[in-house]
Amino acid sequence: MKLDVYLTPGELVHGEVQGRVTVVIDVLRATSTIVEALGAGARAVYPVVSIEEALRLANTLGREDVLLCGERRCVRIEGFDLGNSPLEFTPERVAGKTLVMSTTNGTQVMAQTAGAERVLIASALNAGAVARTLAEAGSDAVIVCAGREKHFALEDAVVAGHLARRLAEILPGPLETNDGALAALALAGRFPISEGFFLSTGAGQLLEAADLTADLAVCAQIDRHDIVPVFRDRHITLGTR
Amino acid sequence: MKLDVYLTPGELVHGEVQGRVTVVIDVLRATSTIVEALGAGARAVYPVVSIEEALRLANTLGREDVLLCGERRCVRIEGFDLGNSPLEFTPERVAGKTLVMSTTNGTQVMAQTAGAERVLIASALNAGAVARTLAEAGSDAVIVCAGREKHFALEDAVVAGHLARRLAEILPGPLETNDGALAALALAGRFPISEGFFLSTGAGQLLEAADLTADLAVCAQIDRHDIVPVFRDRHITLGTR
Repeated sequence: MKLDVYLTPGELVHGEVQGRVTVVIDVLRATSTIVEALGAGARAVYPVVSIEEALRLANTLGREDVLLCGERRCVRIEGFDLGNSPLEFTPERVAGKTLVMSTTNGTQVMAQTAGAERVLIASALNAGAVARTLAEAGSDAVIVCAGREKHFALEDAVVAGHLARRLAEILPGPLETNDGALAALALAGRFPISEGFFLSTGAGQLLEAADLTADLAVCAQIDRHDIVPVFRDRHITLGTR
Repeated sequence: MKLDVYLTPGELVHGEVQGRVTVVIDVLRATSTIVEALGAGARAVYPVVSIEEALRLANTLGREDVLLCGERRCVRIEGFDLGNSPLEFTPERVAGKTLVMSTTNGTQVMAQTAGAERVLIASALNAGAVARTLAEAGSDAVIVCAGREKHFALEDAVVAGHLARRLAEILPGPLETNDGALAALALAGRFPISEGFFLSTGAGQLLEAADLTADLAVCAQIDRHDIVPVFRDRHITLGTR
């Protein structure tokens, strides 16, 4: 099978995801938090970009079992129930709830996946489960790194490479790769998925400056959850594997 | 000094090059060919995107000392004097001439550098000279990888990393880097600049399929020229160093 990795969202311009199983990665922190939330029993996550859209959607869904989540500059949006720190998404808080989550980078990339065969949400927290799902599907796949404000984010590339390596390990046949996948594999061989490594990245340094270093330790926990969230009809739920 | 590397042209969205010394890299083959052409004594290179623009500009400049150069799908454009193979740009053919060159990726990125303090053209062929120029300037710099059709191109990242490493080696102070520069440095440590490596990249495979493998060997010659082409007023000439 063929695996294309796109290291930045600006590379999706020619229908790259059309008909492909597509994986979205935004390690710090959107897709890590979404995996953590669904792992903690949340029923669904609706990713949106703007605060206005979040409020409007929460009203439409009915406010009772809905939690508003999101951050601006790493800090919880005023009046929202939760921020975007995976540590906040405990079973006590989110089990059975529908979450409307305002994040920028990850959400924008999900909106760019129209036409994909399926859209899976990945982070270090569920890399093994996503790799197995891709291997079982066996069809050509795409990994899109969300990055940060259209810029390359090293931690996304490293997790993409980690996922590609694990896919190659369990795939019966050869894995054909594009330049982005070759680079991601090399970067995963060079940088460990760890709190210390995250601290060397631009996104990690922003979180450190916001006193959110504890988030980095959570986002570095490889295979903490054996789940594969699926994005469909504007919301994310646990796919059947 | 601070060095930001942008691995794909889609990352230039927020004025990243404003007031910065900016380096454009398109290893296979635009910036390699431009360095080769100026090293062979060409007076100036006018990069343009379309064939129509090339013909119009050649007419405006006066056809006498002007050569039309360019390729589509690796092959010389019909009716043009030269293609985009560095091997064609010999002193016999190009010394004293003004070249109008139609290339896609490299030219589009140069158009995105408006507002930069200066725009330098780099490839493996002149990496050392560009590194020295950046070190002497000492001000914050940006390297933009042209990539291929908006996609990441591994060979551009590896040459960017090679350039960054050499800059760090000769810089008296520390080199502050963004995520893209960290990745480029790691990739330059992993992949050699060689014909064999180029053959593993998407662009290299296209050139191989077009029987242009000999170009790869030329483009891999580190420090073949001690020159620093400068892009200004829509054309490229040798800057004074």
